[in-house]
Amino acid sequence: MNDDQGRRRRAGGRAGNQARAGTAVIDQMPWRVPVNPDRPTEPLDADGVARIHRGAMKILSDIGIEFLNPEALEIMRKAGCIINGTNVRMDEDFVMEMLSHAPESFTITPRNPDRELIIGGKHMVFVNVSSPPNAWDLERGKRSGDFATFKEFMKLTQYFNCIHIAGGYPVEPIDIHPSVRHLDCLFEKLTLTDKVVHAYSLGAERVEDVMEMTRLAGGLTQAEFDAKPRMYTNINSVSPLKHDYPMLDGAMRLARRGQPVVVTPFTLAGAMAPVTMAGAVALSIAEALAAIALLQYINPGCPVAIGTFTSNVDMKSGAPAFGTPEYMRATQMTGQLARFYKLPLRSSGVCAANVPDGQAMWETSNSLWAAVQSGTNMVYHAAGWLEGGLIASPEKFIMDCEVLQMIQRYFEEATFATTEDDIALDAIREVGPQGHYFGCQHTQDRYQTAFYAPIVSDWRNFEAWQIDGSVWTPERAHRIYKQIIADFEAPAMNGDHLEDLTRFVAKRKQEGGAPTDF
Amino acid sequence: MNDDQGRRRRAGGRAGNQARAGTAVIDQMPWRVPVNPDRPTEPLDADGVARIHRGAMKILSDIGIEFLNPEALEIMRKAGCIINGTNVRMDEDFVMEMLSHAPESFTITPRNPDRELIIGGKHMVFVNVSSPPNAWDLERGKRSGDFATFKEFMKLTQYFNCIHIAGGYPVEPIDIHPSVRHLDCLFEKLTLTDKVVHAYSLGAERVEDVMEMTRLAGGLTQAEFDAKPRMYTNINSVSPLKHDYPMLDGAMRLARRGQPVVVTPFTLAGAMAPVTMAGAVALSIAEALAAIALLQYINPGCPVAIGTFTSNVDMKSGAPAFGTPEYMRATQMTGQLARFYKLPLRSSGVCAANVPDGQAMWETSNSLWAAVQSGTNMVYHAAGWLEGGLIASPEKFIMDCEVLQMIQRYFEEATFATTEDDIALDAIREVGPQGHYFGCQHTQDRYQTAFYAPIVSDWRNFEAWQIDGSVWTPERAHRIYKQIIADFEAPAMNGDHLEDLTRFVAKRKQEGGAPTDF
Repeated sequence: MNDDQGRRRRAGGRAGNQARAGTAVIDQMPWRVPVNPDRPTEPLDADGVARIHRGAMKILSDIGIEFLNPEALEIMRKAGCIINGTNVRMDEDFVMEMLSHAPESFTITPRNPDRELIIGGKHMVFVNVSSPPNAWDLERGKRSGDFATFKEFMKLTQYFNCIHIAGGYPVEPIDIHPSVRHLDCLFEKLTLTDKVVHAYSLGAERVEDVMEMTRLAGGLTQAEFDAKPRMYTNINSVSPLKHDYPMLDGAMRLARRGQPVVVTPFTLAGAMAPVTMAGAVALSIAEALAAIALLQYINPGCPVAIGTFTSNVDMKSGAPAFGTPEYMRATQMTGQLARFYKLPLRSSGVCAANVPDGQAMWETSNSLWAAVQSGTNMVYHAAGWLEGGLIASPEKFIMDCEVLQMIQRYFEEATFATTEDDIALDAIREVGPQGHYFGCQHTQDRYQTAFYAPIVSDWRNFEAWQIDGSVWTPERAHRIYKQIIADFEAPAMNGDHLEDLTRFVAKRKQEGGAPTDF
Repeated sequence: MNDDQGRRRRAGGRAGNQARAGTAVIDQMPWRVPVNPDRPTEPLDADGVARIHRGAMKILSDIGIEFLNPEALEIMRKAGCIINGTNVRMDEDFVMEMLSHAPESFTITPRNPDRELIIGGKHMVFVNVSSPPNAWDLERGKRSGDFATFKEFMKLTQYFNCIHIAGGYPVEPIDIHPSVRHLDCLFEKLTLTDKVVHAYSLGAERVEDVMEMTRLAGGLTQAEFDAKPRMYTNINSVSPLKHDYPMLDGAMRLARRGQPVVVTPFTLAGAMAPVTMAGAVALSIAEALAAIALLQYINPGCPVAIGTFTSNVDMKSGAPAFGTPEYMRATQMTGQLARFYKLPLRSSGVCAANVPDGQAMWETSNSLWAAVQSGTNMVYHAAGWLEGGLIASPEKFIMDCEVLQMIQRYFEEATFATTEDDIALDAIREVGPQGHYFGCQHTQDRYQTAFYAPIVSDWRNFEAWQIDGSVWTPERAHRIYKQIIADFEAPAMNGDHLEDLTRFVAKRKQEGGAPTDF
């Protein structure tokens, strides 16, 4: 069901032409669910973890979280929480009991079962950039998102084996009416990709439609859909201290059907959270646990994950900053708390840069390595993000995929194995002090797979690079992006399922789609 | 003696003009010797460390290292090693006994004692880019190194508080005759900077001249110079399995006077080292320990450090690759071995990219974070390196300093402190669910120092950045570089010491400098 092999072969066939054109041949790594072998980096000692935990518990028991959803309030009242208007207070015993139901890891199985993911443990998966209103590329500059651009990013999302999830909309397609936007977008997501998809929690109809479309695309009965995770949602709190109506509504709908919910507070230290990083993390943890407690009360054992989006603002301008030292430490600290609560962790690949230049890559590298160091299980916005999430860029997407592939290679045991063959004493003796290792058998047996092979990096010397046009990284990425879009072929899909999906979309459009009151 | 304060005040005074010109004001972090609080990332378990150690010991005892220096061979013969021609074999007991003399950490004190460094333990210091033959900048493109460019890089080296050491020549000044090049270069180094300097081990006269010039610049007696480390050298083995004449000669000269020697094999896996990373590391360790054993036999307890420069080649082209996953793991593994031997570690900030673009920064970020994760104590080429070390770039220098400053900030406990003030429950209660943290007292008390303040990053939104000229990172860095050079003032220097230094250079030039036979 996975047609990557076919496409890779074709890509290989173009190698000669591409080499002449001076662009790198895309010889990407195979699909896998990466496993992170590193011990996490832990800035907090056990006391530090306990102090943030106690802070979060005090926020939940003494200050409370606003649940702007009457149904959720009523459920929490029944659960024994203290309700004052929309304010919900819950004590540590209740929270910890609810958390004890949550699984430490779970799978999500999309329409192509070969693309099944494990979320939790040492596993780490990557999600495309999600939700920018705008796109930017080298040719067209910055412009509002549209449906054509949406589809391009879906093709990139499917093409790259290092992208595991077709998450939120990579750009908001403003040329599609909001009432039917989710129908058109999910149709493209489910046909242009065969990877795990996501539903925005933006109203009952949209959430129910996406679940139904995911079910139809997979050819599943209702019981089969409910039997295990098939898609997921991500909800954000409205920091400080609030969960709004549609996010809680969508989360509850998925939880009831055993579909995963990631709860990601967006706590910018100094703006909607304390200026101190531990305070911003404690607030984020409290907000996340409040929603997770609700979901575990509704359906004990339903799959959930804790998300972190704690960064800082530039105190001169108030602008959000990403990939900063403070961001890295907040991510690592949240990782420690997620392990304390035995919950999977989501973080992000982020930057404040406006274009895919050096700043974009040091900020993104900082955030991606913080994801690795924190033991993150799901990395949102892992490819394509610019301008603090306001821009999706195809060049940045390609460049980020290089970093993601390097992280996957970094995880491979071959890079640090110490068998007798790896220590290679016989080769060292054979080559001796005068020789060169290119020619020896030990090298010949291994050279094809010994090292990471880049997709957009240019490792030639300056003169070779100059003769070939002095092409900087974003321009090389642009060429690769164009090639991928030009040659894209959609993954295989069962004809009956496609027909069911098509019919459902037509019917829902005829009914007017989702109500819009804006 | 440190005039940074004065220069920073002047920089602050230019803030208004710079803001109007759209470039970032340089408000850099103060001088410090950073301390890395993280537990290192350790891909190897204890058995893995033992296997690489045993591999290195077998190379030393069974295969041997070539010492292309008769004096060193004679010393090793006296020490009980087995000598066959230029081949030296030594057993584990001898090596470990020699290593037991080496200090785990040491200081180096330059002419300005405020710039004293600690090399070892949790300390981490940064060295400017060293030894490229060429320079590249946005204005002039690639060109051979010259003396004017050398001086520019010395000014950048002095200016940035995050650069601790004026290491090797940032570019080779080919317009100065090799016989007197070291005299001119060291004169500039010792007057344009007041930081720790380095001597190339390229012949007896040069090494002795540099030691003498460092002594004179500091106004030290011979006894004061010998009493503690004042400068250092870095030697490279000629991999595989060789130490050449001048490197060993220089190392022995410094060791005898108690001046530090860093021994850095350059083992490119698949070229001059086994294609397997553990093999390349084992070879590198063996080569380094052979020289260190020699130096500890000559002067037990003399300060030494182990260097790593293990990377891989591109197996398609043979081109060296840097900042790869394999490079990162090799650095981490060497860190584990350095701790096993209780020796300080040197690694590098490196990339294969030809220009300061996205690739340059993801490769450099990978190598710098590997330095952090490996517990590196001295980071060579930390700012300014391009094209695998063949180019020094001032734009890259500025961009790298941003990353170095972020690493320093990342090390600060404030980013992960968990005191009651940090958890900030009172602020969270005070602001509640409707408010904003900008205005609260907890923020007001901290906002000026709460977060990392960038020097070349542009955190403004796209439109503000666009109105200001859509300036990409290298161009912003170029403007900052020009400003720094234009405004540079040399650090204070004692007039008598300057006179002594000037006289010495004149005398040595009159004598013809160092012999050149090439």
